[in-house]
Amino acid sequence: MEFPNELIEEAVREISKLPGIGKKTALRLVLHLLKERESTTEDLSAALLRLRKETKYCQTCHIISHSIDCTCRTINTDVSVICVVVDTPDMLAIRSTGQYKGMFHVLGGVISPIEGVGPEDLHIDSLIKRVEASAGEIKEVILALSATMEGDTTSFYISRKLEAANVKISSIARGIPVGGELEYADEVTLGRSIITRTVYNQGGF
Amino acid sequence: MEFPNELIEEAVREISKLPGIGKKTALRLVLHLLKERESTTEDLSAALLRLRKETKYCQTCHIISHSIDCTCRTINTDVSVICVVVDTPDMLAIRSTGQYKGMFHVLGGVISPIEGVGPEDLHIDSLIKRVEASAGEIKEVILALSATMEGDTTSFYISRKLEAANVKISSIARGIPVGGELEYADEVTLGRSIITRTVYNQGGF
Repeated sequence: MEFPNELIEEAVREISKLPGIGKKTALRLVLHLLKERESTTEDLSAALLRLRKETKYCQTCHIISHSIDCTCRTINTDVSVICVVVDTPDMLAIRSTGQYKGMFHVLGGVISPIEGVGPEDLHIDSLIKRVEASAGEIKEVILALSATMEGDTTSFYISRKLEAANVKISSIARGIPVGGELEYADEVTLGRSIITRTVYNQGGF
Repeated sequence: MEFPNELIEEAVREISKLPGIGKKTALRLVLHLLKERESTTEDLSAALLRLRKETKYCQTCHIISHSIDCTCRTINTDVSVICVVVDTPDMLAIRSTGQYKGMFHVLGGVISPIEGVGPEDLHIDSLIKRVEASAGEIKEVILALSATMEGDTTSFYISRKLEAANVKISSIARGIPVGGELEYADEVTLGRSIITRTVYNQGGF
């Protein structure tokens, strides 16, 4: 790919390092920025720098926050339950359902021997300590990890680690998605949805 | 959409101002940058700022360049022909075909009464002056604008303005794309491809 000058080439190279953005898209963005007012680029550039430099992670729940002490315990939060998620987008997704008012705990990944991620690389120890330190205040840990082999392995590891603590361990339901057709569902999901069937009307539907 | 903190909200707002990037994609990019090393964000931010501040436009052909005097006239350039394009990507596309060795002239847009763009907002005057000042050196002007109403209007306007100058005016061929099926071509394109039919083997195919 040929570029009009090195400045554009350099900007395209940096932008196309972002996930899902190729060189063609990057060039389109660069040419857009060149057409816009200079302040657009300045604002963008400053926002990215500030984001990277000032973002903190809560020491308790590891959620992205503005301080090392986040709002994991606010007045409206149910402090008897912790939802364990892999990363911030999962937390945002669960929070936006409006069905959950409890606390969160971000693991930062899943156990994956292939990628060299072990339990010690994740915030599992701090979860165990958090549950133990609550002295019975935390009554339930919900495991909301992906239904992949890595996710299941991580869930299993956490459940074993929490055995000693007197806490209920649950997992989000696996089953047919709302609006999903039975005939197109895969066998494993359908089988699991029968095994873990719920009492009718229990879910509020 | 809910964000973990204002820094992320601000970065998402700035990124989603870019064309084709919505808030969800912007959030994904932001979370990616937070996971990468700090230098990734610093390099990106610096490249964007430098791009916007240091990019110059050639005073002659209005191509994006590193100086106000670009390489529009290099040793290998055919200075007897000018290709008129709307913007830099069009120029890059034509140059990458390897079929054109002449000079370029970037208009910066097309005449569009609806969007309030008149001939005086484009680099048309400088094109006319450039042709006239060449004192016969420029022998042909190729109009390579889009086959839209605005593009055709602009082509017509330029051709009228160049009537006085002793120069051949041509337009890129409209017709069936290479690899295109006749039965799926629209009537206007097919009709035009018959009217502007070429001598067989002329195009080198």
